[in-house]
Amino acid sequence: MSPFPRPKRMMVGRPLDSARLGETLLPKRLALPIFCSDPLSSVAYATEEILLVVGLGGVALLHLTWYAAAAIVLVLVVVVASYRQTCYAYPGGGGAYIVSAQNLGRNAALTAASALLVDYVLTVAVSVVSGVAAITSAIPSLGGHDMALSVGFVALLAMMNLRGVRESGRVFAVPTYGFVFFIYLMFVFAAVRIATGATPRAESAELPLHAVSHYTGLALVLLGMRAFASGCTALTGVEAISNGVPAFRRPKSRNAATTLLIMGFFSVTMFAGITALAMLYDVHVAVEPTDLGLPPNTPTSTALAQIARATFGEVTVLFYLLQAFTAGVLILAANTAFNGFPMLASILAEDRFVPRQLHNRGDRLVFSNGIILLALAAIGLIILFKAELTHLIQLYIIGVFVSFTLSQTGMVRHWRTVLAERGLPARERVRHRRSQAINAVGAVLTGVVLVVVLITKFTHGAWIVVIAMPLLFMGMRAVHQHYARVSREVAIAPDARPWEPAGNYVLVLVNALNAPTLKALGYARAMRPTSLDALIVAIDPADVRGLREQWDAHDIDVPLQVLSAPYRDFTRPVIEYVLGVSARHPGGAVTVVIPEYLVGRWWEQPLHNQSALRLKARLLFTPGVTVVSVPYRLPSGRARDNRAQ
Amino acid sequence: MSPFPRPKRMMVGRPLDSARLGETLLPKRLALPIFCSDPLSSVAYATEEILLVVGLGGVALLHLTWYAAAAIVLVLVVVVASYRQTCYAYPGGGGAYIVSAQNLGRNAALTAASALLVDYVLTVAVSVVSGVAAITSAIPSLGGHDMALSVGFVALLAMMNLRGVRESGRVFAVPTYGFVFFIYLMFVFAAVRIATGATPRAESAELPLHAVSHYTGLALVLLGMRAFASGCTALTGVEAISNGVPAFRRPKSRNAATTLLIMGFFSVTMFAGITALAMLYDVHVAVEPTDLGLPPNTPTSTALAQIARATFGEVTVLFYLLQAFTAGVLILAANTAFNGFPMLASILAEDRFVPRQLHNRGDRLVFSNGIILLALAAIGLIILFKAELTHLIQLYIIGVFVSFTLSQTGMVRHWRTVLAERGLPARERVRHRRSQAINAVGAVLTGVVLVVVLITKFTHGAWIVVIAMPLLFMGMRAVHQHYARVSREVAIAPDARPWEPAGNYVLVLVNALNAPTLKALGYARAMRPTSLDALIVAIDPADVRGLREQWDAHDIDVPLQVLSAPYRDFTRPVIEYVLGVSARHPGGAVTVVIPEYLVGRWWEQPLHNQSALRLKARLLFTPGVTVVSVPYRLPSGRARDNRAQ
Repeated sequence: MSPFPRPKRMMVGRPLDSARLGETLLPKRLALPIFCSDPLSSVAYATEEILLVVGLGGVALLHLTWYAAAAIVLVLVVVVASYRQTCYAYPGGGGAYIVSAQNLGRNAALTAASALLVDYVLTVAVSVVSGVAAITSAIPSLGGHDMALSVGFVALLAMMNLRGVRESGRVFAVPTYGFVFFIYLMFVFAAVRIATGATPRAESAELPLHAVSHYTGLALVLLGMRAFASGCTALTGVEAISNGVPAFRRPKSRNAATTLLIMGFFSVTMFAGITALAMLYDVHVAVEPTDLGLPPNTPTSTALAQIARATFGEVTVLFYLLQAFTAGVLILAANTAFNGFPMLASILAEDRFVPRQLHNRGDRLVFSNGIILLALAAIGLIILFKAELTHLIQLYIIGVFVSFTLSQTGMVRHWRTVLAERGLPARERVRHRRSQAINAVGAVLTGVVLVVVLITKFTHGAWIVVIAMPLLFMGMRAVHQHYARVSREVAIAPDARPWEPAGNYVLVLVNALNAPTLKALGYARAMRPTSLDALIVAIDPADVRGLREQWDAHDIDVPLQVLSAPYRDFTRPVIEYVLGVSARHPGGAVTVVIPEYLVGRWWEQPLHNQSALRLKARLLFTPGVTVVSVPYRLPSGRARDNRAQ
Repeated sequence: MSPFPRPKRMMVGRPLDSARLGETLLPKRLALPIFCSDPLSSVAYATEEILLVVGLGGVALLHLTWYAAAAIVLVLVVVVASYRQTCYAYPGGGGAYIVSAQNLGRNAALTAASALLVDYVLTVAVSVVSGVAAITSAIPSLGGHDMALSVGFVALLAMMNLRGVRESGRVFAVPTYGFVFFIYLMFVFAAVRIATGATPRAESAELPLHAVSHYTGLALVLLGMRAFASGCTALTGVEAISNGVPAFRRPKSRNAATTLLIMGFFSVTMFAGITALAMLYDVHVAVEPTDLGLPPNTPTSTALAQIARATFGEVTVLFYLLQAFTAGVLILAANTAFNGFPMLASILAEDRFVPRQLHNRGDRLVFSNGIILLALAAIGLIILFKAELTHLIQLYIIGVFVSFTLSQTGMVRHWRTVLAERGLPARERVRHRRSQAINAVGAVLTGVVLVVVLITKFTHGAWIVVIAMPLLFMGMRAVHQHYARVSREVAIAPDARPWEPAGNYVLVLVNALNAPTLKALGYARAMRPTSLDALIVAIDPADVRGLREQWDAHDIDVPLQVLSAPYRDFTRPVIEYVLGVSARHPGGAVTVVIPEYLVGRWWEQPLHNQSALRLKARLLFTPGVTVVSVPYRLPSGRARDNRAQ
C-alpha cells in the first residue's frame, strides 16, 4: 500500500489501538526518567558553565561560584514548589501555554508557546551535544566526530520516540537511575577520601588560569550575574512534568507533584555536591585549551569527568561507568523535549496556531509529525553551531524563563479567580492562598532571573532567540488568522443547500485510441453527462488523421473535437476550449476527464502524464471546472495495488 | 494563469506561431556563425593544447608541434570533405544518429547518440571555460572568478536560446566574423613584421621549459600521439552543419555543403597560422606556472593572447579587440551545442529513446526542455571540474570521434545501398562512387584517430566518458523498452469498446458541513450515481455528533456513513470501506469525491488538504476506484483564476 511499508513497521513497530491508550499511563518510577532526565542531567554541565564564566576573572574570582550556585539552588527550590501548585491546579496538563491561555490571554499564550518551541529544540541540541562531550571525555580518540555523533543520536532518539512513550520509559529508566546512583556513589567515595585526610586534586588544578580582564565594580557584578545565568541551565525541563500530568497514573496530580519533589531533591543535592567537589578539587576549565596554557586542540575533559577521575582514582571502571551513564542520561534528556514538543504542537494545532497536520496522532499513539519536525530543527542547530556546546548554551534558558514567568504569573491569576468563588470552604481558601503566595514568589523570582539572563547573554548569542521568538509568534498568529478566515469563508447559511449544477458538460482528453482512452470514455459516460465530447490537440496532423480513422473503425459515438495548436502548446487550446464551454453554460459543471497511466516503477512515472499534470495544475484555477483523472493500471504495474485484505 | 507568466515572457519573448516556422530558415551568412562557431573558435585553444603536451618533453621536443599540426590539418580536410557528402545525401538532416540508424542499425545509432549527447555537454563546458580564459588573459584581475563567470555565461546562453534561433543568429554573427577578421589581421601584421626583419618574441619565450621526463622510443611516439589527440579539439562541431541542413535556405544541401567548405577553409588557415606563429615566437606554456619557473598562482596568458600581444605590440587596442572577439566566439561556440542537443533529443524522443517531454517544442519554436537540460549538465561539469580547462578537455573529443567514425561508416553503407539500385545513370554512379570513396577514407581515418585518442587520453580522465556513454546507452534502451511495453499493453483489439461500468457507486468524503462540502455533494449528485453516500472518519466523537446535527438541520438527503478509526488514522478506514464497496459491486465504478480547498497564497496551501492528498495517493493504487477532487475556491483565493480572455 505505502511504497515502504515494511521498513517503517520494522522501525516503529505495530500500530496501537486507541483503546490501549489507557495502558500507556505512567507509574512514578517510569515518569521520573521520562520527564526529568533533562533537569537531572543538566547538573552534568551546569557547574562547568559557571566555572567557565568566573574563570574569566582568573583564579581569584573562582570563589564567586559559591554565590552563583547558592542562588541557583534557591531558584530551583522556588520553581519546583511553584510548579507543584500547577500540578494540582491543572490535572489535565498545565504547561505554560495552557496556563497563560486560560489566565493571561492569547498573546501571552502565544509568547509562551514561542518560548517553549524554541527551548524544546535547544534542549535536544544542548543535551545531545553535551552527552557527546561526556563520551569524548572518556574516549578522547572520538574527539573529532562530535557533529556526526550528535546528529546520529538525535536521529536515534526521533526513531525511538516514533515507537511510542511506554517503550521509551523503559529504555530511559536505566541511564537516568544509573546516573543518579553513580553521582551519589561518587559523593560517598569523595566523603571517605576527604574524611581519611586525602583530598583529591583535579588533573587541571595546577594549570594556570589567568584573568582575561580585571573585573571590579559593575563588571564584577555582571560577571557574577552571568555565571549565575549560565548555571541556570540546571532549571530547564521542570515544565515537562506539569505539562505531562495526564500521562501519570491516578491520582495524577499527586503523583506528578511527588515526582516533581523527588526530582527537585535529586537536582539540588547533585548540583550542590558536584559544585562543592569542583571547588575542593580546584577544577580549572576554559573555552579554549590555550587559555589554560595548553597547546591548541589538546583534548580536555569536562569538569564532571575531572571530578570523577580524581574521586574514583585507581577504580577506573567506576569512572567509565559514570561517564557512560552521564552520556546516556544527557542524550536521553533530549527525550523530555521529544515528549513535550509534539504534545505542545498538537495543542497549538487544535487551537489552529500551527498547521493541522501536527494534530494528527500517528499510528503509534504519538505525534509523529511533531517528532520529525523537532529532530530536524535540532539537527539544523547542531550543524549550524558545529556541535559547540559553549555557543549553543548561549541561546538556551531565555525561552525557559519566559515561560516560567508567564506560567507563574498565570497561576497567580488562576488562584485569584478560584478565590473569588463564593462558598469556598475556609480550609480550601487557606490552601489556595498559600499556593497563590508560592506562585507569586515564583513569578517574581523567575521574572528577575529572566532579566538577568537577557542582560548577561544578549550579546553572546541570545539575540538570535530574541529574534526567533517574535517570528514564531507572528507566524502562529498568521496561521491562526488564515484558518479563522477560511472558516468564515466556508461557513454556510442555515438554509444553504448542496450545489445544483445546471448540467454536467464532460470533455474527455484523448491523444490516441487505446485502453486508457476506452476506460476514460466509459467512465465519462457512466457520469451520465449532459453533453460528452472527446478533445484532441492537433500538434501533429498525422496523429489526428490516425485517430479519426480509429475512431470510425471502433464506431465510438462520442464526438471528436480537434483543437488547433498554433504554438504547439498543448495546455492553452484546452484551457481556451474549456473556458468557452463554461461561458456557454453558466451555472453548469464542466468536467475534464483525463486518462492517467499508472506504471509500476518509480523511474517510469516521469515518462508519462507530464502534459496531463501541467494541464491539471492550470485547470485547478479555472472556475467551475472539475478534473477527473481516470487511472489506467498497466498490467505490469499492478504489483502495488491495494486489494481487499 | 501560470504563476509566473510575466517574468517568463520578459525573458523568452512572445510565443511564435507555427506558420512562421518558415521564416526562421537561415541564409549562409547567418548559418555559418550559428553552426560553425564551435570548430572556428576551437583554433583559439587547439594550438595551446598541443604545446602543453609536447612541452612535457622540454624545449627539445617542441618541434613535434609541426607534425601534430600537419596531421590535424589532414584530418580536418578529410572530415570536412566527408561531411559534405552527408549534406547532399541527407537533405533532411544527417547527424551521426540518423545516418547510423538508417545504415548501421539501432545499437550503432544509440552509440552515436550517447557520444553526441556527452559531447554537446562538453562543447558547452569547454568553450565557455576557454572563453573565460581569454577574458582573464586580457583582464588578469578577473582571474579568481572563472567558475562564477563560466556558470553565468552558460545561463545567459540558455536564456538566449530559449528566445529562438533567428535572433541567436544575429547576435552570434558579430563575434564570429569579428574573430575571423582579427585573426587574419594579426596574420597580416605578423607577415609585415617578419618581412621587415623584426620577428616578435612571445613574453614566455625566455621562460625555462624543462622536460618532465625523458621521452624516447615508444614514449616519444605516445607523446606525439597525445599532442595530436589534444589538438584534435579543433575538429569538434563539424557534425553540426550536416545535422542542421533543414535549417538552411534552399537549395538546402548545397548551401550547407558550401558553408562547410568555407568553415573548413577558415579553420585550416587560422589553425595553421596560429601554430606557425606560436613556433616562430617561441611560446612556452605549461599547466602550472611553477613548471615555467614562475611563482605559484602567477596569472598566465593563453598562447593565442601571447601571440596577439607580441604581434600587435604597441597597438594594444587591437590586442584587446581580438581577445574580446575570441571570448565572444568561444562563448557563443557553446551555442552550436544549444542548437544540436535539443534537436537530437527531440529526434530521440520521437523514436522513444528519451522521455517524451523532450519532443515538445516550447512556445518559441525551440526545444525548451532540451536547452534547459543541456545548460544544467554543462553547469554541473563546470562546477565539478572547478572550471579548469586542462581537466575538462581530457573528456572531450572521444564522443566526437565515436560519432565521426559511425557516421562515416554509415555513409559508406548508404552509398552501397544507393549504388545497388538498378537503372542509375552512369554519371550519377561515378559521383556516388566518388562520395563513397571519400566517406571510406573519412571512416578509416577517424577510426584511427579514435583509437589514438582513446589510448592517449584514457588515464587522463577520458575513462569518465567511457563509463558515461554506456550508461546513457543502457538508459535509452530501458526507456525505449518501457515505451514499447506500455504501447503493447495499452493496444486494443479491433472490436474493443469503451468500458461500461455496472453502475457508479459514489462516496463523498466529509469532515464538516460547509461550503466546500455542499459543492462536492452537489457535484456528486450531478454525476447521477447508482448510489451516493457521505463518509466521515470518527477521529473525534464530538465532531461526528456535531456533523450529524448539522446534517439533519440542513436536511441533507445523502446517507452519512461514520467510519470508526481505532488507530486515529484517517486513511486506512476509508481505503477499507472503499475496498468493501468495490468488492460488493464487481464490474462497477467506485468514485471517491473529495472537497479540495484552493487558497490564494503559496504558503497557505500546505495548511490544507494534507489528509486528502495522502488518501489520494493511496487510492490511486486501488483498482476500479476513481478519485474526483471538487475544488472550492475560497473567495480570498480567486485572484489566480483563469478567466475567459
